Amino acid sequence: MSHDAPVSPLAPASAPDIPPLEGVRFAVGAAGVRYAGRTDVMLALLDRGTTVAGVFTKSKCPSAPVDWCRDRLLKGGKARALLVNSGNANAFTGKTGAQAVKFSAKLVAGATGAPERQIFLASTGVIGEPLDAQKFDGLLEKLVEAARPDGWLDAARAVMTTDTYPKLATRTATIAGVDVTISGFAKGAGMIAPDMATMLAFVFTDAAIDSEPLQAMLADGVKGSFNAITVDGDTSTSDTLLLFATGAAKQRGAPKIEKANDKRLVEFKRALDAVLRDLAHQVVKDGEGARKFVEVTVTGADSAKAAKRVAFSIANSPLVKTAIAGEDANWGRIVMAVGKAGEKADRDRLAIWFGGVRVAHKGLRDPDYDEAEVSQIMKRDEIVINVDLGIGKGAATVWTCDLTKEYVAINGDYRS
Amino acid sequence: MSHDAPVSPLAPASAPDIPPLEGVRFAVGAAGVRYAGRTDVMLALLDRGTTVAGVFTKSKCPSAPVDWCRDRLLKGGKARALLVNSGNANAFTGKTGAQAVKFSAKLVAGATGAPERQIFLASTGVIGEPLDAQKFDGLLEKLVEAARPDGWLDAARAVMTTDTYPKLATRTATIAGVDVTISGFAKGAGMIAPDMATMLAFVFTDAAIDSEPLQAMLADGVKGSFNAITVDGDTSTSDTLLLFATGAAKQRGAPKIEKANDKRLVEFKRALDAVLRDLAHQVVKDGEGARKFVEVTVTGADSAKAAKRVAFSIANSPLVKTAIAGEDANWGRIVMAVGKAGEKADRDRLAIWFGGVRVAHKGLRDPDYDEAEVSQIMKRDEIVINVDLGIGKGAATVWTCDLTKEYVAINGDYRS
Repeated sequence: MSHDAPVSPLAPASAPDIPPLEGVRFAVGAAGVRYAGRTDVMLALLDRGTTVAGVFTKSKCPSAPVDWCRDRLLKGGKARALLVNSGNANAFTGKTGAQAVKFSAKLVAGATGAPERQIFLASTGVIGEPLDAQKFDGLLEKLVEAARPDGWLDAARAVMTTDTYPKLATRTATIAGVDVTISGFAKGAGMIAPDMATMLAFVFTDAAIDSEPLQAMLADGVKGSFNAITVDGDTSTSDTLLLFATGAAKQRGAPKIEKANDKRLVEFKRALDAVLRDLAHQVVKDGEGARKFVEVTVTGADSAKAAKRVAFSIANSPLVKTAIAGEDANWGRIVMAVGKAGEKADRDRLAIWFGGVRVAHKGLRDPDYDEAEVSQIMKRDEIVINVDLGIGKGAATVWTCDLTKEYVAINGDYRS
Repeated sequence: MSHDAPVSPLAPASAPDIPPLEGVRFAVGAAGVRYAGRTDVMLALLDRGTTVAGVFTKSKCPSAPVDWCRDRLLKGGKARALLVNSGNANAFTGKTGAQAVKFSAKLVAGATGAPERQIFLASTGVIGEPLDAQKFDGLLEKLVEAARPDGWLDAARAVMTTDTYPKLATRTATIAGVDVTISGFAKGAGMIAPDMATMLAFVFTDAAIDSEPLQAMLADGVKGSFNAITVDGDTSTSDTLLLFATGAAKQRGAPKIEKANDKRLVEFKRALDAVLRDLAHQVVKDGEGARKFVEVTVTGADSAKAAKRVAFSIANSPLVKTAIAGEDANWGRIVMAVGKAGEKADRDRLAIWFGGVRVAHKGLRDPDYDEAEVSQIMKRDEIVINVDLGIGKGAATVWTCDLTKEYVAINGDYRS
């Protein structure tokens, strides 16, 4: 790690042990992009035939590697290698950025023999500084040689920036009776943090799935995971989520899936969603300065979309988030956040719960609620807020963390 | 004041001295709504014939007094009295809230002889607690008796909640050669703060202007003032801005203006805009925990609307606001905020200035900029950020403050 931040109190007790996954090998190295005394480059080698899907930041000012990956996805949906560096995001770097990306891909192609159109890249770190891809020269051959299937934890560590712990998740599922595994890792602590840190996630499976159904499942899966979390409402220029399917399970009899609506994918999809959600939750739990993990569920909205917008209005409100940091069940601020969301709402039908205890309903404080009970609930690490709008059937859940003085310190004091 | 927060370092050296304005008198009292040892009720008496205009929160969960005022404005556009209390917002109070409003109006009508449809009400303070309007009973007759034309500062103080200083502004203009005055006061420190504090502003003029042109000017004037500021992006349930025109200047030969496009209003409109902007800036400068006043101007956008959305994306970004608190010209975060605004932007045409010094252009850090110079600029109390998107002619300016640990303390620590 490049800094001395203590590990988030919301971190899992230990990182899960990820077993090797057929068809993928990892290697990490220290290229000295920005940090000293730590790894900052991660290379994943993927067996021939690996398919890929991706979703990216909606930012109108995406980083150069995001442009590159989007373009690669249009070129056949196959992948042979993934190179990720930390320390420099290669974002807002103009033509130099595009050149650095091209040069990196060329180096990977040279070291691996894979065609450039099957090489994926991601960068995370400082914005606006040129990335010196020359630093990867010479290193990549060593990484190719050193790549091994059990390097998950090292890989997750190499891509960290302001993260206080590595984030890994794994699940298994069966496809037509054959066991397949889905494993991945992510990094991110703020949507974009002290000049560095953005959300990157890489998920791998040995299932054999064409890139089209893979893309469809990933696009759907982010809705309830990475697109349902917020630390500070800020969107990175570099957010990248890639899903690779090596197809190695075919050797064990797994079928090759060609259509997204294939019934044999049901269990796989559920496991994929669980991996994505697990990783997304870990990102929130490493939210800068976070001391509480907050789940906000909105029901009774006009539509699912309306419910999500109201839920994010609550989850992004600095006043709601500071109240949670202060362990206060401040439902007045929830009312405010519902009101400002711009979606249909009726003050006099609104009901609000903290940790399952109803504190307000029908436009009024609930006369029966026990302040002492709610006060105990607010002391927990994980706070569940439910809001029923009482006007329709739309529902959505999002996750966030509290807003503490440490967030301001991490993001404001780093130079002063 | 109900708390011990020190006066904002951005407060004006002293409150402006507001001279009496013909046709309006003020009285304040202590009803003990919530605070002890301070005034918490303000009554403004308006001469017969006073016209009124208003704009209100866009919250879908508005307070009971907001509902009341909106309804009154539809009933003739005339006003005889304004009653404001601090300590209780009468928001999210269900039917009880509507009853409290009705009872308050009845008391004002009884004490003043004015018809209920010409009585305006505003409340600010705790959300979700019933407002006991009985506390105004008996007090209002005394206020009517005590009302005097020079009570501006007392009036501004009586409506304060978490404000650290009273906010007043005044300007003069001529209409057809006759001097008229526009004076007003506002309160607000966060869009909605520790259970209390919302934005209220009341502006008065002795000009004679019908309610329709008055409403048109006010609706336009808020665009560049109260609708162009943000402290925390949170929207109160109670935001209320009322503009009263007593028409007393008619006695000194001022014409009665009946149409918004009347050329004789040009100077008046400019003075009104200045009063609104002055008050809006004072609200930002009292932003909770604020130590810097920030102006964000976006040019070169696709449209004025797009420019404003990008400007607010910057002004509301916790990462931009914490960087300013840390005195860091972090243009990478500006790029991020431009990118996430959702409006058309081209990374490679973007230019960014801090305090007039260009730090980035054409998708790159400006190689010529002097870090030491920008570092000095960031130490100032007032920070000006300019962003040119380079794609169109849309422009907009908004104002905000920095995000400090004090903001979190004020909004999170008040119970713990």
